[in-house]
Amino acid sequence: MPAAPVAIDADRLLADLHTLRSFGADGTGVRRQALSPADVAAREWLAERFTAAGLQASIDVFGTVHGRSPNPGPAILIGSHSDTQPLGGWLDGAYGVICALEVARALPGLAVDVVSWQDEEGTFDGFVGSRAFTGHDMTADLAQMEAGSRAAGWWGRPILRAEPGRYRACIEPHIEQGGRLEAGGQRLGVVTAIVGIHQHRVVFHGRRNHAGTTPMDLRDDAAMAMIRFVHDLDARFGTAAGPDSVWTVGRIDVEPGAASIIPDRADITVQYRDPDEAVLARMDEAFHAAVTAAPKRPDVAAMVYDVQPAQMDAAVQEALADACEATCPGGWRRMHSGAAHDAQLLAGLMPTGMLFVPSIGGVSHAADEDTAVADLALGCQAVATAVAGLLAGPV
Amino acid sequence: MPAAPVAIDADRLLADLHTLRSFGADGTGVRRQALSPADVAAREWLAERFTAAGLQASIDVFGTVHGRSPNPGPAILIGSHSDTQPLGGWLDGAYGVICALEVARALPGLAVDVVSWQDEEGTFDGFVGSRAFTGHDMTADLAQMEAGSRAAGWWGRPILRAEPGRYRACIEPHIEQGGRLEAGGQRLGVVTAIVGIHQHRVVFHGRRNHAGTTPMDLRDDAAMAMIRFVHDLDARFGTAAGPDSVWTVGRIDVEPGAASIIPDRADITVQYRDPDEAVLARMDEAFHAAVTAAPKRPDVAAMVYDVQPAQMDAAVQEALADACEATCPGGWRRMHSGAAHDAQLLAGLMPTGMLFVPSIGGVSHAADEDTAVADLALGCQAVATAVAGLLAGPV
Repeated sequence: MPAAPVAIDADRLLADLHTLRSFGADGTGVRRQALSPADVAAREWLAERFTAAGLQASIDVFGTVHGRSPNPGPAILIGSHSDTQPLGGWLDGAYGVICALEVARALPGLAVDVVSWQDEEGTFDGFVGSRAFTGHDMTADLAQMEAGSRAAGWWGRPILRAEPGRYRACIEPHIEQGGRLEAGGQRLGVVTAIVGIHQHRVVFHGRRNHAGTTPMDLRDDAAMAMIRFVHDLDARFGTAAGPDSVWTVGRIDVEPGAASIIPDRADITVQYRDPDEAVLARMDEAFHAAVTAAPKRPDVAAMVYDVQPAQMDAAVQEALADACEATCPGGWRRMHSGAAHDAQLLAGLMPTGMLFVPSIGGVSHAADEDTAVADLALGCQAVATAVAGLLAGPV
Repeated sequence: MPAAPVAIDADRLLADLHTLRSFGADGTGVRRQALSPADVAAREWLAERFTAAGLQASIDVFGTVHGRSPNPGPAILIGSHSDTQPLGGWLDGAYGVICALEVARALPGLAVDVVSWQDEEGTFDGFVGSRAFTGHDMTADLAQMEAGSRAAGWWGRPILRAEPGRYRACIEPHIEQGGRLEAGGQRLGVVTAIVGIHQHRVVFHGRRNHAGTTPMDLRDDAAMAMIRFVHDLDARFGTAAGPDSVWTVGRIDVEPGAASIIPDRADITVQYRDPDEAVLARMDEAFHAAVTAAPKRPDVAAMVYDVQPAQMDAAVQEALADACEATCPGGWRRMHSGAAHDAQLLAGLMPTGMLFVPSIGGVSHAADEDTAVADLALGCQAVATAVAGLLAGPV
């Protein structure tokens, strides 16, 4: 049975989104890396807006902004991040934060906490706010971010950690950052799982030599060894992967990089993602088989990045699905997230879900990232409706 | 019938080589790029040494140093270049210049001209001295090198061009810069041909996108397109090439070069060499077939570098072979040059030959480039013996 749609104030949502965009604006994009002056100013402004909405606002030592509802629990935590890529779009993260604020305002009688996590984008080590909140050791992060925190006037404040027993669920609204909703003509996406990410650095060593005087059979060419490895790996992944798998060799550095010199070093990054741990395990096998099969074995460091997939909570998915059907009948789908999100960490602590709105042209991490205004409002209404459903039901 | 070996002064040869090495010395290597202060000083010193050897020394507008024998012709022109790579070895080019000087001193009654060509290594457009001498249009080179020539005090001087009818032959002594003589246990190499070099710049364009949210079937990945192209090209070259062919992808630039971003540009250099024009033509065909077969066709600019192979003169080869057999019976071989040399341009103007001495470990264009002292002396003696043979024979 579809839930009754909750009314939200779309103009207020849009106005706040545009104000947040103004912090670090650069053309249609935004430069608001964690702890930059623009990020610090934006977070101070967010705290003011949370306070104005009747929430108890705080900013922690890293910069995570939390708005605690004074209403009696159980509570729902909603939010995302307000830091950006070096030059990011105006909605990545920001949409989830302002959407959360609007949901809290639209449901003034419920216990809706709002949050903007710090450094999701990895200006420092990434996912700083959500790692801290979910109980990770933050010693290294504190050391790395002390100077920025001091400059912001936040040094000495406590780390925001989750309040035990407070939350029934967490929801992160976000733009899709891909083109599947647009391609399918849907306006909302209920996330089923967030991909796991495995990433390796693979370095091939060769012998630098003259490209004219060194016969083919006496060469030790690091670049050709790399080319053959990636070609073989691509074929192996084609067999091992599932329908949702993606793999990317995004960084290739060849040295010395001159036309007439046989390269002595090729240094690449191999990354692969899948929402299913079993598929990731098959891809791990394919990767190591390719390394072993390489005529000259490359150096492979310990996995650089090893994030396990996160399944979204079934009950939260149901509440979001009901809300989607209530606000946009037949115009939504279930889908996995190919990008990492703070929700991945939250899912280890409490029932967590995500709602996607479409990205025009599938564009993200770029200045021309955008979403139709009507979809921004619809997504907010769906989240508010889901929250009302979750807090109305039995504990 | 082997020629009678001509005596040379090995100590004098070595002493001059070490003095030349001191201009721009950096550890065991040398920094003496064309028109650098070290190069200018070295060329002024060479002119003094040529004069001291009884030659009429001149330095032209670019810096090519010529020592003209006052003896009646026909003359033999011997030499190489004294400029180096940014950090080069002490013998690449330098050996041929000092070897030539010693041959002129060892044969004081013959018409032996000595030369150090300017900018063989391409600090400017490369092969400047030998291009000028062989009648090429030097307008662009003059413009590019005016400031350096003025600083050297050479601006306004004439360009050194070949004196019509003067030369019977040209010989360029040089280090091998490869490991074939060492591997075969030979101490001298008579060059049969200098490879032609074809070089292309190939640029793949894709669409920059998020490596997590863009499914494999919606990607336009410039790096993977490049990997597949090079892999296919390598296989095609394997079929089209001859036993002396070499091919190299020495430069690979991928943008933006981040682990989580699908690359939108991959820019590479494809270079191949062979001493036989027919083989180079087959490799051209293989290259263009690979470009045509690429699922997404890359941009290929007009050939960046297109040097035809140069055959060494049969009579000069015979004179060098006789001299090798006289000075090192059974310890020499015929071979092609995988590297380009000034002799390639001279071969278009007059009968030209080259003599190689071994490179220890095949190392060149590096600070630890070296040749056994006995081989340096032996090579000089062989060239002197060949010159005596060439000037004794009929015109």
